[in-house]
Amino acid sequence: MLHRIGRDKVVYDMSPEHKPVLEVSPGDTVIVETEDCFCHKIVSESQTVGGDFDFTHVNPATGPIAVKGATPGDTIVVSIESIELDDQGVVETCPAWGPVKNVSKSCVSEIVKIQGNYASFMGEQIEIKPMIGVIGNSPADKSIPCTTPGRHGGNLDTRDIVAGSRVFLPVFVKGGNLSLGDVHARMGDGEVGGSGIEVRANVKLTVDIDKMPVDSPTVENEEAFYLLFSAKTLEEASHGAVKRAIEFISDWKSIPREKAYMLTSICCDLMISQVVNPLVTVRVRVPKVIL
Amino acid sequence: MLHRIGRDKVVYDMSPEHKPVLEVSPGDTVIVETEDCFCHKIVSESQTVGGDFDFTHVNPATGPIAVKGATPGDTIVVSIESIELDDQGVVETCPAWGPVKNVSKSCVSEIVKIQGNYASFMGEQIEIKPMIGVIGNSPADKSIPCTTPGRHGGNLDTRDIVAGSRVFLPVFVKGGNLSLGDVHARMGDGEVGGSGIEVRANVKLTVDIDKMPVDSPTVENEEAFYLLFSAKTLEEASHGAVKRAIEFISDWKSIPREKAYMLTSICCDLMISQVVNPLVTVRVRVPKVIL
Repeated sequence: MLHRIGRDKVVYDMSPEHKPVLEVSPGDTVIVETEDCFCHKIVSESQTVGGDFDFTHVNPATGPIAVKGATPGDTIVVSIESIELDDQGVVETCPAWGPVKNVSKSCVSEIVKIQGNYASFMGEQIEIKPMIGVIGNSPADKSIPCTTPGRHGGNLDTRDIVAGSRVFLPVFVKGGNLSLGDVHARMGDGEVGGSGIEVRANVKLTVDIDKMPVDSPTVENEEAFYLLFSAKTLEEASHGAVKRAIEFISDWKSIPREKAYMLTSICCDLMISQVVNPLVTVRVRVPKVIL
Repeated sequence: MLHRIGRDKVVYDMSPEHKPVLEVSPGDTVIVETEDCFCHKIVSESQTVGGDFDFTHVNPATGPIAVKGATPGDTIVVSIESIELDDQGVVETCPAWGPVKNVSKSCVSEIVKIQGNYASFMGEQIEIKPMIGVIGNSPADKSIPCTTPGRHGGNLDTRDIVAGSRVFLPVFVKGGNLSLGDVHARMGDGEVGGSGIEVRANVKLTVDIDKMPVDSPTVENEEAFYLLFSAKTLEEASHGAVKRAIEFISDWKSIPREKAYMLTSICCDLMISQVVNPLVTVRVRVPKVIL
């Protein structure tokens, strides 16, 4: 069955207090209209997030969507079929954003026109690689702002979350209560300046339930699994993601933990997703060829 | 002109005190025989780095090679033509190594046979991707152990340093005094378990001098430049590498720093090289298509 949710149906946190705006069955397809991370308040270069910009209303996520039959301990599997972009996006940076401070003296915006497979940045054509920045389920017993990543998902800013990939998210409440937004026409690993090409989009996805539990968000594509982990520092996040990889490989292949660690060391990549959110996110890429 | 250095000509630190074992002219080719990082002391699985293993003699680098005419402020450009591996390597992990501690109860070794394009790990065939772990010039006025990376190069453990790539290293002393070793048949980003597939090799390379200074090691291949930075934490290293990327892109394209930061954010990847040496190394990948 095909459903559609408008981009007016947004939340700014993922929370057990939000009632679902849509209930779907496993196997159903949904077209999710997503708002851009700045709530479409930056549509010309004279507008920025400087001054009295309302930072309590950023990273809106469309939803929540309840999946019938999903119960805590399950996994919601989101198969992303397509990401269709609006024809204009924006790149933003501010003096306090990213690993290098005060590169700009004030917040600045660059408007980017998008046509076909290209975005025009300062007059140059850049190939687009559309991806979803925010995607997650409701946490069990607290609200987490959509700006923040965690075990529930949230602001993962992971550039492998693209059309053709599958996202595995742990379920903490009945129905899971999935929401998503913050699409980027393109973003590099790290999102170091604090934004990608932020853009409205229509995301077509299919949802399903997997009874196998997953500890934290996991992404799969044809070539690999990506095991994500978010924490305060890159060191802590690396610890969490590498631990996940060791356990995943050891369990999958039925080999001792130390052999799985060796295989991680020689064949898997420890990768940075983003370093600009309240928690940072890293991932380990596990190529399927070694499984 | 073609030269050759045997793997008995090694140093354990990069130091202005070491006399060159070979002097070459710009444009000359050298076949450098490299020792494995454990000095070939682990050739069966009953041998490990546990017990009374001599950690003052690890990561030997063959050299130093002086390049005629190189003076402080210059850059030595190493074009790697081929990396020919021995037929046996070793993977090692120890309880104190990597982001996840005590995965193994003691140090363990896995011997890996190498044939053609494959290494046999626990009986499974893994495609090899030979790379150089240690490569660097002499520092100006101190000795840095070959275990440690830095502005001079050293234990960079960066898996883009492969045949077909070029490595740019700052010159701090007359002749540069290049040395290299620690080849891996394969290593994942992070080298999280503490080793790759460690193996002896014969590296064929051509050296040249570039009068354009480079701040820290840089790697180039057909598609991209990689700007490396090593520091105590991943956060500090990220700051250094991203700062380099902003300046590189801004200078190359003659665009303001904040526009270069935006371009880094949307098109460049902040990547982890290794997290297991005395300093960690990250790199920013700058795709040539945006330059």
